[in-house]
Amino acid sequence: MKLIVQKFGGTSVGNIERIRNVATKVKKELDRGNKVAVVVSAMSGVTNQLVAYVNELSPLSTPQAWAEYDQVVSSGEQVTSGLLALCLNEMGVPARSYSGWQIPLKTDAAHGKARIESIDAASMLEEISSGKVVVVAGFQGIDENGRVSTLGRGGSDTSAVALAAALKADRCDIYTDVDGVFTTDPRIVSNARKLDKVAYEEMLEMASLGAKVLQTRSVEMAMNHNVIVQVLNSFNDTKGTLLVKEEDIVEQKRITGIAYSRDDARISLTEIANIPGMSAALFAPLAQAGINVDMIVQNVTEGGKSTDITFTVPKVDVDNAIAVVEKLRDKLQYKSLHADKHVAKISIVGVGMRSHTGIAQTMFEALAEKNINISVISTSEIKISVLIAEEYTELAVRSLHAAFELEKA
Amino acid sequence: MKLIVQKFGGTSVGNIERIRNVATKVKKELDRGNKVAVVVSAMSGVTNQLVAYVNELSPLSTPQAWAEYDQVVSSGEQVTSGLLALCLNEMGVPARSYSGWQIPLKTDAAHGKARIESIDAASMLEEISSGKVVVVAGFQGIDENGRVSTLGRGGSDTSAVALAAALKADRCDIYTDVDGVFTTDPRIVSNARKLDKVAYEEMLEMASLGAKVLQTRSVEMAMNHNVIVQVLNSFNDTKGTLLVKEEDIVEQKRITGIAYSRDDARISLTEIANIPGMSAALFAPLAQAGINVDMIVQNVTEGGKSTDITFTVPKVDVDNAIAVVEKLRDKLQYKSLHADKHVAKISIVGVGMRSHTGIAQTMFEALAEKNINISVISTSEIKISVLIAEEYTELAVRSLHAAFELEKA
Repeated sequence: MKLIVQKFGGTSVGNIERIRNVATKVKKELDRGNKVAVVVSAMSGVTNQLVAYVNELSPLSTPQAWAEYDQVVSSGEQVTSGLLALCLNEMGVPARSYSGWQIPLKTDAAHGKARIESIDAASMLEEISSGKVVVVAGFQGIDENGRVSTLGRGGSDTSAVALAAALKADRCDIYTDVDGVFTTDPRIVSNARKLDKVAYEEMLEMASLGAKVLQTRSVEMAMNHNVIVQVLNSFNDTKGTLLVKEEDIVEQKRITGIAYSRDDARISLTEIANIPGMSAALFAPLAQAGINVDMIVQNVTEGGKSTDITFTVPKVDVDNAIAVVEKLRDKLQYKSLHADKHVAKISIVGVGMRSHTGIAQTMFEALAEKNINISVISTSEIKISVLIAEEYTELAVRSLHAAFELEKA
Repeated sequence: MKLIVQKFGGTSVGNIERIRNVATKVKKELDRGNKVAVVVSAMSGVTNQLVAYVNELSPLSTPQAWAEYDQVVSSGEQVTSGLLALCLNEMGVPARSYSGWQIPLKTDAAHGKARIESIDAASMLEEISSGKVVVVAGFQGIDENGRVSTLGRGGSDTSAVALAAALKADRCDIYTDVDGVFTTDPRIVSNARKLDKVAYEEMLEMASLGAKVLQTRSVEMAMNHNVIVQVLNSFNDTKGTLLVKEEDIVEQKRITGIAYSRDDARISLTEIANIPGMSAALFAPLAQAGINVDMIVQNVTEGGKSTDITFTVPKVDVDNAIAVVEKLRDKLQYKSLHADKHVAKISIVGVGMRSHTGIAQTMFEALAEKNINISVISTSEIKISVLIAEEYTELAVRSLHAAFELEKA
């Protein structure tokens, strides 16, 4: 007998009929002889409505405001947890709901983006061993002051993985509206292939690079606690994708997947004086302004007296970033500032990079063949990212998918 | 400096603009130099939506189902509490929200219709004395198992009065969408007059007789704890109606108000054997079936050998009641059973009845003058109720209002 955590997202519980469908999925797992703990999101649309109410009333500029945001927004998952428990009970499956505070799932007091500190599994384990299904409202917890906290958008994935770790579950099944993790976005590449297994590290890169299947923090947590995660579709019965340790992927391909993101903007500064401390003088104020700088390249210009710096920031922060940089003009003595919002970041990801060579070359050649110009490159051990003009996004993804033969199993 | 509890119903917080209006009312009370604790209902329509979801999934036939009902339905007030606290904070009024479990407001485990057992005022009093407004989600509490409970529809009034008692507040202002308590329903009698003061006992009779301004239990609780309650309109600034002790109403009129209800049905049994124990044989099984019998009359027929019994039950229970009575046919040996759903109960209420005479006579004469036939009469110390054909409801109310000159101050 195994203990399985099942997590169902907003579209999977979007109306009463779908909640019934979810209850059937839960029952099927029980019929296999397993025990089940369920984590649910709010019904689709509900959280957006609640957030809209909050935004009408407040710019959310204080911790107090965020605490009230949590009081309001956490209600969506609470409702789903009660409805699913009700549905299960009616089907003859004993079940009970839990809000985050009832577990308790303790978090820090960073309302709106709280981090989980501890989960007391005792009450849930007692109910589970008495034969009940526990249905937990995702996305929420309680802080040290006894106030409700939320984990940030998509936080139900994190709730589910954390719960699986606390319950020492055998697997954490994340039910979504897609069949699993694909080699790339199937909307762009029609022969994109569903992956049977993905290493945590790969998923982490892909999640943070724009593959929206799982929240990044949930993948981190799964990796840190060795939780086996399965991503699968709540609307059919196909096998999903397993997130496992790198060593559990027997035959590694050169690369595993291609991710893309249109969420960044590029800022270039020309002819900054090339003296020590200039990078810190630029990037420290941006960090202080809460702006997350991603890719950075620096080229020393002819003669070595000045340097050009290009970096990317989230598109939503670009105006803010420009303002910060313009205030530094006297200090940095740069000649010109260019910003470009029409860029895309294309990344190839795979633990196979550790053992295979020539991967960067294949990537650059495939892009060059299509006359796609690369403005920035950044790399990690298992990832190469390039910044290109946004209009080439689909072309670049398709070319790379073909070049690495990702359609082949 | 006084401590005022303000309670705002669903229509008063029905949208974001109205929540802003409520925040203004709160601020106005603070500007008078008072401290404020607020109790809020769910935004109008929200509870109905949540109840509809629940009803789609379950007939609510088990305590477990009702516990999940509470998990779902309590979310509406939670949302409003957060939104109002947010709105107050943005207006520069420090405020924080409380769900029932955060207080904690402890109840028994009768989910869906729980009764308040205790309220720990310490945390709220601390916040209030630190200069904050506390905004409490009405209608809800927590049971001994740590599960959320609700007090039944309209329970926010009860929350407010209980909170006023626990906080030893100077007054409990119940904001609704009407100007206060009227001599009768202004939709029926255009010159119905708003009452400045009503005795608890009168309000209790009027509330239970169909005047829907306040939930009966909240009036009981106010009476038992001597909480001064004011009913007033959240959409204007007119003075409301004060609920006070009988002795605080200086000059008592003969009657105070007229209530009516179309929620009952009449059942008549003819020629029951007139022997001891027959009443118990009839009413005990009805009570066991959970049917609330209200008015009862019994007439011994000619010769004294048999008796006719007429009684009323809630219209929703009438089919159930008939089934119970028909099973008793062999035992009661009644000749015939008649049921009539088209009846109305008209009641005149007033503590003045204790000291004035001739009131019943005035009532019966006024109805006789309009050829309105009375089928059942029941009385208490401060109330006379009559059962009439439903079609005469408005005519009866208007005639009585005029007969007792209630339009005059």
